[in-house]
Amino acid sequence: MDAAFYSRTTLSPEEAAEHDAVFGALTRATRALADAQLRTEVDRDEAAKVTSEIEALTDRLLRRARDGALGTELGPGPTEVRNHGNAVMGLRNPFASIDVARKWVDDAKHVHAELLLDGLYEGPPGLVHGGVSALILDQMLGEAAAVGGGPGMTGRLTLHYRRPTPLGELATEAWLDSTTGRKSIAKGQIRDAEGNVTVEAEGLFILPRWATEHPEWTSREKTFE
Amino acid sequence: MDAAFYSRTTLSPEEAAEHDAVFGALTRATRALADAQLRTEVDRDEAAKVTSEIEALTDRLLRRARDGALGTELGPGPTEVRNHGNAVMGLRNPFASIDVARKWVDDAKHVHAELLLDGLYEGPPGLVHGGVSALILDQMLGEAAAVGGGPGMTGRLTLHYRRPTPLGELATEAWLDSTTGRKSIAKGQIRDAEGNVTVEAEGLFILPRWATEHPEWTSREKTFE
Repeated sequence: MDAAFYSRTTLSPEEAAEHDAVFGALTRATRALADAQLRTEVDRDEAAKVTSEIEALTDRLLRRARDGALGTELGPGPTEVRNHGNAVMGLRNPFASIDVARKWVDDAKHVHAELLLDGLYEGPPGLVHGGVSALILDQMLGEAAAVGGGPGMTGRLTLHYRRPTPLGELATEAWLDSTTGRKSIAKGQIRDAEGNVTVEAEGLFILPRWATEHPEWTSREKTFE
Repeated sequence: MDAAFYSRTTLSPEEAAEHDAVFGALTRATRALADAQLRTEVDRDEAAKVTSEIEALTDRLLRRARDGALGTELGPGPTEVRNHGNAVMGLRNPFASIDVARKWVDDAKHVHAELLLDGLYEGPPGLVHGGVSALILDQMLGEAAAVGGGPGMTGRLTLHYRRPTPLGELATEAWLDSTTGRKSIAKGQIRDAEGNVTVEAEGLFILPRWATEHPEWTSREKTFE
């Protein structure tokens, strides 16, 4: 992995805000379509017609498109990070389960998020897929490690499933537990609407050796909130 | 959680096949749109127009739709399971990363799948999100436990990240390691295109007490392949 993968956006703050408003709306619309196509019970003819129209819209979007993943851009400001493709919280990723507008850091540097997990995150009937809880907690613990001053890549992650996690409104919280050199331990949990802890996680995060010599990595991680 | 959550479909085998062909195509089209809207660089006017058209299609699909998640249906045959909403491999879930057509069980009852993970699964630039690897391995280990005769719900899951997982073509494999009473240990891994193991996982799966008295749970789990 190359430390040079962080390019800096050429967008001005105004252009970035306009871009994000338009493409964020496109992603939210796609997210709503993903939910609707899961739940729909229209007849097969109508479903096939909508399918064709979706395909036509895809073709329009692909008339001008990059080849690969979005990656991460820095800027336009000195501390901003544009990781809009991120699978858990990317502005342009319709799979994202964390809405950055419902995420915050408290005075103790604990990262919190409120979540609404619908049928697209289902595992056992009516329940959140155990792997989705793992996905969310990996992101949360990584952010908490960075916010707490111990950024890194996930080295080990352990999930303890304490009780079933129902689909619907949930809360998640994560915090840095300890740091030793380039290694940090972060912990976190998911809670149901009644406040019961359903899943607990502990993760080991390791800062790659090359990153300790690369100022943009640490600045990026520290601005994750 | 109620053991009565498995209803039996009223669709005949022919109706089920037709239904799945049409709604599977709708989901694949939505998946392609999700990818296109991530990568598109069309101008803002065109993006806004496509957004409006997506919203209109969503409205059409919601004219007749169920309220909540799909859950799991049994049938139409005696051993078939319709968990089409599943976040990792559901036929009607555009987030699904495992294509059941690229998944198989070998003679030793190891579960295998080939994966193509694109930009929608990104974490660090160019790399699979660590939580996405966890999501996939939770599903794979759960299936391997069931296929091996030790079905259950995830009790604990530990991921060891051995090296970065690049976006692109990957392979995953999981197997039942041991079973003691209602508890099973399953193990698995993700490998990159060169065959290097990038992530290893170990999971504890526990069969709920009520399920041991409920024949449909065990029959469902055993037909996961």
